Amino acid sequence: MPDSPVPPDPPPYFRAHVFVCCNRRPDGHRRGSCAARGSEKLRDYMKVRAKELGLAGVRINQAGCLDRCEFGPALVIYPEGIWYRPETPADIDEILETHLRGGGRVRRLMLTETDVVPKG
Amino acid sequence: MPDSPVPPDPPPYFRAHVFVCCNRRPDGHRRGSCAARGSEKLRDYMKVRAKELGLAGVRINQAGCLDRCEFGPALVIYPEGIWYRPETPADIDEILETHLRGGGRVRRLMLTETDVVPKG
Repeated sequence: MPDSPVPPDPPPYFRAHVFVCCNRRPDGHRRGSCAARGSEKLRDYMKVRAKELGLAGVRINQAGCLDRCEFGPALVIYPEGIWYRPETPADIDEILETHLRGGGRVRRLMLTETDVVPKG
Repeated sequence: MPDSPVPPDPPPYFRAHVFVCCNRRPDGHRRGSCAARGSEKLRDYMKVRAKELGLAGVRINQAGCLDRCEFGPALVIYPEGIWYRPETPADIDEILETHLRGGGRVRRLMLTETDVVPKG
């Protein structure tokens, strides 16, 4: 007898789901932290601007430690799994316009496979 | 002249990235909230169990409000974008084993496109 067919996955709930690391470690921690590098203000700005731009199906969330602290402030956009290191509101604007509105990439701000956290 | 080729995206940094909504609203809020429905304990349990299971490339994070409060406690797994509503540690175990270790789906716990937040 044939197996039952596997049902398809539901359609994506959000077209793009952004997670901004807002983890904060104590001052002077060896790894630093995204919040210590200013991620909370960037998150707030990104939420406001995404709403102003009326980007349908885009959700901006804060998240706990994404474990790329050394390369923060870090954010990741799913489902495509692209990571960025924005440092200014202008960087956030460029990610919103180029990536989230246009479907492109902001190469100069992307983390890549060479941005690896040192062991130990 | 041909356009420059578009560079490929970097490989995924995590094989599976789980976000557990830990938003908490005041008691009695009309929408409720995932933390009020017990998500923080489920997040803690999931982090511990994922580590015990030694699931390589799997990251468990908390997140701010994922905006499916009525169907919480909510979590989402990317890049596949599958949403679950776990209510017990046993539900978490099943998601870890079936989805994150086995690549399958726990249909009975999945949110689907019919789980839509009421307007207004």
